[in-house]
Amino acid sequence: MRRERVRDLLTRVADGSVPVESALASLAQEPTESLGFATIDHHRALRQGFPEVIYGAGKSTEQLVAIAQRIAGRGDGVLATRVPDASISALLDTLPGAEHNALARTVLLRSSSPTATARRTVLIVTAGTSDLPVAEEAAVTAEAMGCLADRLTDVGVAGIHRLLSKRGALDEASVIIVVAGMDGALASVVGGLVRVPVIAVPTSVGYGASFGGIAPLLTMLNSCAAGVTVVNIDNGFGAAVAAARILHGSTE
Amino acid sequence: MRRERVRDLLTRVADGSVPVESALASLAQEPTESLGFATIDHHRALRQGFPEVIYGAGKSTEQLVAIAQRIAGRGDGVLATRVPDASISALLDTLPGAEHNALARTVLLRSSSPTATARRTVLIVTAGTSDLPVAEEAAVTAEAMGCLADRLTDVGVAGIHRLLSKRGALDEASVIIVVAGMDGALASVVGGLVRVPVIAVPTSVGYGASFGGIAPLLTMLNSCAAGVTVVNIDNGFGAAVAAARILHGSTE
Amino acid sequence: MRRERVRDLLTRVADGSVPVESALASLAQEPTESLGFATIDHHRALRQGFPEVIYGAGKSTEQLVAIAQRIAGRGDGVLATRVPDASISALLDTLPGAEHNALARTVLLRSSSPTATARRTVLIVTAGTSDLPVAEEAAVTAEAMGCLADRLTDVGVAGIHRLLSKRGALDEASVIIVVAGMDGALASVVGGLVRVPVIAVPTSVGYGASFGGIAPLLTMLNSCAAGVTVVNIDNGFGAAVAAARILHGSTE
Amino acid sequence: MRRERVRDLLTRVADGSVPVESALASLAQEPTESLGFATIDHHRALRQGFPEVIYGAGKSTEQLVAIAQRIAGRGDGVLATRVPDASISALLDTLPGAEHNALARTVLLRSSSPTATARRTVLIVTAGTSDLPVAEEAAVTAEAMGCLADRLTDVGVAGIHRLLSKRGALDEASVIIVVAGMDGALASVVGGLVRVPVIAVPTSVGYGASFGGIAPLLTMLNSCAAGVTVVNIDNGFGAAVAAARILHGSTE
Amino acid sequence: MRRERVRDLLTRVADGSVPVESALASLAQEPTESLGFATIDHHRALRQGFPEVIYGAGKSTEQLVAIAQRIAGRGDGVLATRVPDASISALLDTLPGAEHNALARTVLLRSSSPTATARRTVLIVTAGTSDLPVAEEAAVTAEAMGCLADRLTDVGVAGIHRLLSKRGALDEASVIIVVAGMDGALASVVGGLVRVPVIAVPTSVGYGASFGGIAPLLTMLNSCAAGVTVVNIDNGFGAAVAAARILHGSTE
Amino acid sequence: MRRERVRDLLTRVADGSVPVESALASLAQEPTESLGFATIDHHRALRQGFPEVIYGAGKSTEQLVAIAQRIAGRGDGVLATRVPDASISALLDTLPGAEHNALARTVLLRSSSPTATARRTVLIVTAGTSDLPVAEEAAVTAEAMGCLADRLTDVGVAGIHRLLSKRGALDEASVIIVVAGMDGALASVVGGLVRVPVIAVPTSVGYGASFGGIAPLLTMLNSCAAGVTVVNIDNGFGAAVAAARILHGSTE
Amino acid sequence: MRRERVRDLLTRVADGSVPVESALASLAQEPTESLGFATIDHHRALRQGFPEVIYGAGKSTEQLVAIAQRIAGRGDGVLATRVPDASISALLDTLPGAEHNALARTVLLRSSSPTATARRTVLIVTAGTSDLPVAEEAAVTAEAMGCLADRLTDVGVAGIHRLLSKRGALDEASVIIVVAGMDGALASVVGGLVRVPVIAVPTSVGYGASFGGIAPLLTMLNSCAAGVTVVNIDNGFGAAVAAARILHGSTE
Amino acid sequence: MRRERVRDLLTRVADGSVPVESALASLAQEPTESLGFATIDHHRALRQGFPEVIYGAGKSTEQLVAIAQRIAGRGDGVLATRVPDASISALLDTLPGAEHNALARTVLLRSSSPTATARRTVLIVTAGTSDLPVAEEAAVTAEAMGCLADRLTDVGVAGIHRLLSKRGALDEASVIIVVAGMDGALASVVGGLVRVPVIAVPTSVGYGASFGGIAPLLTMLNSCAAGVTVVNIDNGFGAAVAAARILHGSTE
Repeated sequence: MRRERVRDLLTRVADGSVPVESALASLAQEPTESLGFATIDHHRALRQGFPEVIYGAGKSTEQLVAIAQRIAGRGDGVLATRVPDASISALLDTLPGAEHNALARTVLLRSSSPTATARRTVLIVTAGTSDLPVAEEAAVTAEAMGCLADRLTDVGVAGIHRLLSKRGALDEASVIIVVAGMDGALASVVGGLVRVPVIAVPTSVGYGASFGGIAPLLTMLNSCAAGVTVVNIDNGFGAAVAAARILHGSTE
Repeated sequence: MRRERVRDLLTRVADGSVPVESALASLAQEPTESLGFATIDHHRALRQGFPEVIYGAGKSTEQLVAIAQRIAGRGDGVLATRVPDASISALLDTLPGAEHNALARTVLLRSSSPTATARRTVLIVTAGTSDLPVAEEAAVTAEAMGCLADRLTDVGVAGIHRLLSKRGALDEASVIIVVAGMDGALASVVGGLVRVPVIAVPTSVGYGASFGGIAPLLTMLNSCAAGVTVVNIDNGFGAAVAAARILHGSTE
Repeated sequence: MRRERVRDLLTRVADGSVPVESALASLAQEPTESLGFATIDHHRALRQGFPEVIYGAGKSTEQLVAIAQRIAGRGDGVLATRVPDASISALLDTLPGAEHNALARTVLLRSSSPTATARRTVLIVTAGTSDLPVAEEAAVTAEAMGCLADRLTDVGVAGIHRLLSKRGALDEASVIIVVAGMDGALASVVGGLVRVPVIAVPTSVGYGASFGGIAPLLTMLNSCAAGVTVVNIDNGFGAAVAAARILHGSTE
Repeated sequence: MRRERVRDLLTRVADGSVPVESALASLAQEPTESLGFATIDHHRALRQGFPEVIYGAGKSTEQLVAIAQRIAGRGDGVLATRVPDASISALLDTLPGAEHNALARTVLLRSSSPTATARRTVLIVTAGTSDLPVAEEAAVTAEAMGCLADRLTDVGVAGIHRLLSKRGALDEASVIIVVAGMDGALASVVGGLVRVPVIAVPTSVGYGASFGGIAPLLTMLNSCAAGVTVVNIDNGFGAAVAAARILHGSTE
Repeated sequence: MRRERVRDLLTRVADGSVPVESALASLAQEPTESLGFATIDHHRALRQGFPEVIYGAGKSTEQLVAIAQRIAGRGDGVLATRVPDASISALLDTLPGAEHNALARTVLLRSSSPTATARRTVLIVTAGTSDLPVAEEAAVTAEAMGCLADRLTDVGVAGIHRLLSKRGALDEASVIIVVAGMDGALASVVGGLVRVPVIAVPTSVGYGASFGGIAPLLTMLNSCAAGVTVVNIDNGFGAAVAAARILHGSTE
Repeated sequence: MRRERVRDLLTRVADGSVPVESALASLAQEPTESLGFATIDHHRALRQGFPEVIYGAGKSTEQLVAIAQRIAGRGDGVLATRVPDASISALLDTLPGAEHNALARTVLLRSSSPTATARRTVLIVTAGTSDLPVAEEAAVTAEAMGCLADRLTDVGVAGIHRLLSKRGALDEASVIIVVAGMDGALASVVGGLVRVPVIAVPTSVGYGASFGGIAPLLTMLNSCAAGVTVVNIDNGFGAAVAAARILHGSTE
Repeated sequence: MRRERVRDLLTRVADGSVPVESALASLAQEPTESLGFATIDHHRALRQGFPEVIYGAGKSTEQLVAIAQRIAGRGDGVLATRVPDASISALLDTLPGAEHNALARTVLLRSSSPTATARRTVLIVTAGTSDLPVAEEAAVTAEAMGCLADRLTDVGVAGIHRLLSKRGALDEASVIIVVAGMDGALASVVGGLVRVPVIAVPTSVGYGASFGGIAPLLTMLNSCAAGVTVVNIDNGFGAAVAAARILHGSTE
Repeated sequence: MRRERVRDLLTRVADGSVPVESALASLAQEPTESLGFATIDHHRALRQGFPEVIYGAGKSTEQLVAIAQRIAGRGDGVLATRVPDASISALLDTLPGAEHNALARTVLLRSSSPTATARRTVLIVTAGTSDLPVAEEAAVTAEAMGCLADRLTDVGVAGIHRLLSKRGALDEASVIIVVAGMDGALASVVGGLVRVPVIAVPTSVGYGASFGGIAPLLTMLNSCAAGVTVVNIDNGFGAAVAAARILHGSTE
């Protein structure tokens, strides 16, 4: 159960609108659930504000469906990332009302109860068109976590005026996620322009000495703009969770 | 000039306590200053809330002293990191009132004017005793940036009860910096326990297949706890700046 | 011929129930057998307690069948790992009574004679669902070698309570195999909790800076829990043989 | 407190030779102790059979002495590895009766109470003379953990008869630690000759494409002899702890 | 034109059996021939004793056929390696009498004139069955270059008696090519047993930390048996040419 | 708009043949254009002399077509590289008059207005036949940028007379692009023979320890011939743009 | 002899001011000269416009002095780079009139005859103060080769206004050398701003995941600004020679 | 005992000039000798034609002296390589008549009995002056093994005429060792020019992306000249032993 639902439940117990026994039953659900091939961490919604997210790569359709059903049953919503094409329709059948984002490769079922929202904006900036799938994974995840997500697309440093002409968007964001492959230089330039947290996501876009994303990863780790942090190559999901950690921390 | 000083100045202009011409003179200082071997970015204090920090490694004592004098002249304080032993006394002579932290290898001159403080805590967690210099660099930097810094030392996962018995400290922090070498596994465990932002700093502590910090760097980039972000190996400074970006963003 | 069969044979010669000439014929079989493309090490069953195991990857169906026939002919059982899909039915036809484990990609024909069993348990712990094929390869191998195999699944450190709630299973094992991809941090935590031998198997599960398993491999080699040993990436087979070396050594 | 001491204490309580209050006082010592720069895991002796071992590299003499004093105070002995030359005499002064092994770079204070011994032999085999410091670290550690340690020196595979002529020693060992740099091939040959556990330690001995031990590390991870496990480069300490885990597991 | 053909031609000119003008015409052929997409080095047969060998990978069938025709036209034979499956029949049609070796992926047209043969033996030793394609490429190449090729198969060091029982074959060879993947340890053992040149070929056989052949490559470069030389991963062709350089050098 | 078109327009304004308002309208087009998934840098033609080149890899046909239409609309021509096979016909339909080069994987629409040409020659030298696609990409790009392109094919250093016999072609070139895989040694030899700029392009041609082009990349970066510069692996496009930067710089 | 001196000599022979025999003697000097430990390429001055430059690292003072004497004897000047501190005074004694640049670690003796100069400017741009030694090596070399050298210092992208405010200097250069460590992002930004050739020099400035310059090297090889070329890490010398190749090519 | 000494001894037994008992005593010496820290392989002289060579790096003076004494006692000569400066005089005192080569870092005591010599020449070709120590190690080793050694120095491919003018020396050699750092391109050019065996030795000469010799190592492994073999970085010793294997093989 998400933190806000527990808080709401406790409030109702306090004001008498929910009897103690009923609240107890809700809270008494097991924090973990074993499916044999998976051990679901239901406690995560309470501990970290969102249920365990399902990483789709390498899981069979049967496994995905079974895990999604159990998480959905708790009522806090479901997010699956890197969903293999072959599993999408089965997952959508399992989760009525869920949304599929083809570019992001995600399936999202929103929570059935109102959720706390961060009311502040994550701006997702991409260096090139090919970085979009990773950026979109970040955007879907940020929204699933209750944040607002804006995009600024294809503003790589080879034509720096494209970025500089968007200073307004940069200044209005509360957190900025920079998604870039090849030289990854965009993260340093953005990091030097703004004061807010900047999370850099290297992508595997490129060829040759890009080495599947190692080049932008190293660029970002060595950013001459201080205070830029980095997540794994192509990990749009992780960047958005980091953004949500920041925004929720400052609104509670 | 730091943002808060400019804000203060403008407020005084608005209420008539400072004449326009006087304020203009203060604001008319050049945003960059060239020393031949360096181009100081004085605009950084306004843009990012703290003056350019001096990275001491590879600079001569003469260069360090000259740069420090120019930055100090603006009145927003000075921080130098990785200061070579041979340059410390010259730097302390140049900056009366500055503090030297031998473990962190820093020299810090606090701002002559009151600074905005974040009033929230960065908790710096280390896996082992040998990670302390990097942790201390983070602590000094965080304090220079107006944050509070707490420490939790030598709580690596080989004795997980050491960490678990400190849940209280973890729960009270607004941002957590995890400093770890060798297997770097502490970042994942902490990331799974808390909801706030976790910034991981791999250290070059270790030997053999640690490869000067590559092992914990990769561990942290691949953290199974979502939303953990990473900075460069041994980069305690960068982690603290990232924490300050987070905390200042949420207090303004 | 396995050690226990030779020991049994010698015992019968000693008590007169088997004539010397008959025993001699059994023992006179060549220790190696050449098939042109392979040189089978029949002596391994006697030297190391189990016949040469067939590594299926990169071998044609014809080669697999021919090698399996020769090993089966000695009566000590057959184990083939990494069996290509295209070779499974031919192999099962060749080895009547053999069992195919699809997840583990193994074909196992148990020994026709009773084998010494270790009577002690190898516990195979996995960090995530995607690590299961490697874990299952370990389980099948351990059982083929006469050990008992238990499983603890999907207890990665991002939700450490999942592992801590299973202290009982950890404490009862005689050897623990930890199978983990991504950050590989589970090995260090388990290594710190128990006193028995811990064998870590990094998996190629993950993406980006996981580099096909290098990240968890380095994590495990640098484990801050002393005495954790490591096998090759995805090498569930090797981990189980190491466990069998340990358990058989202590029961003879 | 070591497991055997606790067991002994409980036995005496049971037979009345130690009063409950006195036993309680002994058991009531804190499981962890904080020195500011270190958090000592006193519980390790009970949990894993030997007190926390002090890794000397990167620690100041003051830190080493302080940690050693606290561990020694519990009466279960002290082992420090990789002790810097400059700290040796201070450490020996701090620990009366401690032994310094210059080749192994260790300082060992034996337990003041009798300890459980494994009564079985770890054979430490080295490929070349330059591998001796790592081998000796393993030997000292094994003995500190209550095992017997034998050596077989300079029997690399370039002259395979040197190894084959020692089959007797190989056959008598309960666990074999193979220490080798350069090509690391010795581990595979030994692994193929024996049935007992083989733990391989790559060393940084060599030059050029040895890459500080990466070459033998990879050789050992890819050993064609099944069931060979590997520890970090130059980690003689870890190999011995792994051996002790094996031998103690089988004697309890 | 091969060296021996030129030598023969000159001999006949000397004894008058071939007129000067006729010999001149034969010798006046261009040393290089341009096909637009390729510049054939016809001089190589004279300079190095065998025509330019065609590396098939990455070439279209049209390119392979055109190059093969031009080389065949000079009468010194043709060897193509790594021939793509799709190009085999076209190449065999182009080169009547050519032989296709499926395992080695070669097409060989022997020289139409008698060639100098080395009359001495290259022994090709393989560690495992999966190394056979590389070994067979070496064997075909060695024979094309006029050497005798023998094989010793699947004698890896995990069962060292398989190799030791073949000392006779090792002692009779003039050059030994060792083909091994995984740990590549066979090269060191063979190098220590014999006095003749040993050429090591690492193969990409293996998985995980084999890294596509880097592991055995490093093993072989660091061989503790002095004087073992190494060629590129999977380069059976290059090893055989090196062997031919040795054997022809010693017979002229 | 390309520089020369702007220069021409201004000249006409100066001589009265184009009214100011009309020129203004032409110049008033936006320097960037957003398509949602892409932000086209139309200013590049003016700033750098050629419109933004479309990198085809990783873009959908729809994206390629949309971007190409917008660039073509400005009248300065279009170049698309690494065009996926599936997008070629749609792109040719979109750009009437465009030319497809199958070997180079390019689609080129020449500018509708006369362009400044460099009138000097880029010589593209390749080591082997398999390097041709990269070389051809360079040639098409050089011609699109207004340079002349010559080729010298398959003159690798294993038969150095092939290169030395072409000294004339080398001496006549204004810039030389050396395209080579495997050992990449050709760049050093050419760099030592000529005085003009030499741009080296490593290719991913090769196998084993070529590591997808790392081997020739390192060779070229370490060239013992001073002043050889290097571009990314397989980056024929980048080498040609660098050549155009050189040649246009010297003709203006 | 430099090209211009030969050209001058031939002109004088043509006009009769130098007798044929005298010119012949000047031209008859050996193109190479062997010192036992070195083979000097005196032909380089004629072939490439400047005498062989002496790479000082790894050479003894005796070797440096001997080589410098021989090159100086030809009258075309001498440049030594990476001169060890211990060899400087001996070298200055050997070469009267030579200049030592401590930052660049060079010793330069200018040619005794007037040399062709390129009359155009190489602008050397550095990201940080620590990049200066490499930049200065480039500047000294460029001047030795007859080019003009300007500097733009410490304008890294973390404060992009520092660079943008210098557009004038960028626009006036004929070739730009960008020297940067850490993230190396400056090369991409400069490459996108200008039309002239941009040569990027990664430096080993940085720490951790900079890996001695690999990070900026990869950034530069993957530059999203087309046509940026790269030289080896810290190779200011090579970058300047590349610039001289460009500028001399366009002035002859 | 060397092969030739045993052969001589047997001949004398056959002709009666040495009594059987006396020969028996000579032959009865142990094939291995244990010094505790080393196990000397005295059998190597018989098996491979030269006694075990002492690798000096990492051995103490005491160890070096002790090993050298034992080997010298057998009368077949002693060779020590990589001898630390601090051990040289002790070693020379131990081995009266031994020669120290400072450049090669070797100490050589020639055999007290006449040795078989190969009577053919190993030509050692170096690319630059800094490669000389490795080349000299090769030369001393080759001579110790009974081969003739010639040198060709500083003929790198940046000035290819230096090499081409020495075709005579190349054509007269029986084996060629190419020693080169930086780009390592010399091996390919030499390999293409000659027919005899070419052994390539990469050196750690260079900087930046040379990576301590990895660059030339990869160049040489990927040589486009077929049949070039490679030894470890800086391994002049190994190259010479490989040459001796070739030359002795062809003379027996």
